Amino acid sequence: MAQLVSSLRLTCQVNVFPCLVLCYLLFILVGGVVFTAVERPVEKELRAEVAELWRSFLQENPCVQESRLSELLGRALSAHHSDVAVLKADAEEKRYDFTSSLYFVIVTLTTMGSDTYTPKSDETKLFCIFYCTLGIPLTLFFLTLLSNLLLPIVTYAPVQHLHSYWGLPYTQAALTHASLLFVIVFSLLFLLPALLVCMLEPDWSFLEALFFCFVILSTVGQGGNSLGRNWSLSARETQELFTTCYLLVGLIVIITFRDTVLQVPQVRAVIRLLSGPQYTELESIHLNELSLNEDHCEKEPQYSQSICTISSVPFELMSPYSELQRATTCCPDTS
Amino acid sequence: MAQLVSSLRLTCQVNVFPCLVLCYLLFILVGGVVFTAVERPVEKELRAEVAELWRSFLQENPCVQESRLSELLGRALSAHHSDVAVLKADAEEKRYDFTSSLYFVIVTLTTMGSDTYTPKSDETKLFCIFYCTLGIPLTLFFLTLLSNLLLPIVTYAPVQHLHSYWGLPYTQAALTHASLLFVIVFSLLFLLPALLVCMLEPDWSFLEALFFCFVILSTVGQGGNSLGRNWSLSARETQELFTTCYLLVGLIVIITFRDTVLQVPQVRAVIRLLSGPQYTELESIHLNELSLNEDHCEKEPQYSQSICTISSVPFELMSPYSELQRATTCCPDTS
Repeated sequence: MAQLVSSLRLTCQVNVFPCLVLCYLLFILVGGVVFTAVERPVEKELRAEVAELWRSFLQENPCVQESRLSELLGRALSAHHSDVAVLKADAEEKRYDFTSSLYFVIVTLTTMGSDTYTPKSDETKLFCIFYCTLGIPLTLFFLTLLSNLLLPIVTYAPVQHLHSYWGLPYTQAALTHASLLFVIVFSLLFLLPALLVCMLEPDWSFLEALFFCFVILSTVGQGGNSLGRNWSLSARETQELFTTCYLLVGLIVIITFRDTVLQVPQVRAVIRLLSGPQYTELESIHLNELSLNEDHCEKEPQYSQSICTISSVPFELMSPYSELQRATTCCPDTS
Repeated sequence: MAQLVSSLRLTCQVNVFPCLVLCYLLFILVGGVVFTAVERPVEKELRAEVAELWRSFLQENPCVQESRLSELLGRALSAHHSDVAVLKADAEEKRYDFTSSLYFVIVTLTTMGSDTYTPKSDETKLFCIFYCTLGIPLTLFFLTLLSNLLLPIVTYAPVQHLHSYWGLPYTQAALTHASLLFVIVFSLLFLLPALLVCMLEPDWSFLEALFFCFVILSTVGQGGNSLGRNWSLSARETQELFTTCYLLVGLIVIITFRDTVLQVPQVRAVIRLLSGPQYTELESIHLNELSLNEDHCEKEPQYSQSICTISSVPFELMSPYSELQRATTCCPDTS
């Protein structure tokens, strides 16, 4: 019986990489199917609406040639795509000013991307390529440095407290802390801003506002649904400023949360399992770590400020820390 | 003299974090100034063009009420923003089909974001939030796993070869290899695709095509400038398929390149220096490592397949590897 279990475990470990590939493909397929199924009817409806508007306009204005109207609309759409105010009401107000520029810089460097501001001239495009090649890694590096300053306060100290004062085993302390942090982060970073957005833009439902917050902080970028299209210029500038701050602060908190989750022993065990045979062979996975009350889990690092844990927050460019530390502190033993 | 140099070095090390903050703010400001200066005249020109078109249309069609035209245009623009084909010519062709859905899934999960497809219904938005919360970390994890398979072939073996057969010191071998790889990656991943795009879309300049490739692979997202707006449906579907493949393969190569760069000792030294006092105190930076021909640089890990280097490619979620390995291989010494 024990042999069967251990051989089953080995098979599972060896085949984990192909399984992961298969599951991922399935995940993508399911996404594709759901989006097609749900979106198609909505799109059909919207399209019918526009066609009806078009038809009634031509009927009401018989002097207008359809081809001429098409031309006007086509040009207007392409100009609108480059964020040029097409409608008279906007035209007086919208300008590519310094605030907009700063907003563009931040959303581009965080790879969120802006759909309302895009470089129009060749010089800007060239500058943008060089600027981002340097700036994107720098921004991620910088955000991670700031998150590193947050980690001892937000994660190490509370887990240590839960462990030593409340007497929770290390794995439980880490898991409890991560769950609590999730609730706090989700409330402060998503629910609260979504409520604020709802209050500011009464046309939007709460879900729309939540989605708006989500696409910003996931750096996916807001596809057209931008806030404040009908606001005054100064209100829109304030909104851009707030969005920029929200994005930067949010990313730092999310990096901190991610690193907190990656410190949870159960999460580590799952990732080790999923990393495929080349890692499992080397590291001999303990599936037991997945359960909560194993004694050996207590041997995990205790969030002390030792050289092994102080710089444990690699994100993108931060990975060199672990590299460096392995090089300086660990490798001498093996080389 | 030696004392002066060493005290200067210490000052530099202690103040490196505030300096970094200052430099980063300056970097952002310069970006903002340049974008404002270059973009404003171009935007003014475009806006004047649209205003002229609008005026001449109203002059030619005196029966049209300006307010009515504004309304039509406003509705058309907002529908266009949700990727509903507004013009008759497109309307027959464009559909939210399965290919488009898959394209949307991939560009969203890689956080590039699509400006042409956005969820329109509430159900899709809710699904999108859950799907991405799970999918974005999974995608990054998956791409890094694949890049890990590439790294021994693309980086470890060539550097080892340069080191042992060509007799180059380790630091020089790593630097030479990284430079060569940069030329190859830039040619194959940016210049070649940009040339192809140029051939397919004769209206675009080479710079426009290069910018198009750049915003895809940096996951910033193509702000409106999407390829193939005037193409046939099947051509556009093929283009979406190719873009998806380009994005995924490109990201794997870029992750591999990034990790290659992070293995270069000079890069490590710079990052160690920039990481601020809390790291420098612990690790006692050797600025000498910045020079090429120091003997002690030879002591860097030799790209062997030891446990210290095999999993040296943390990217986003991959960071647990280094965590894990420190926990399993290194920490027993310090705890």
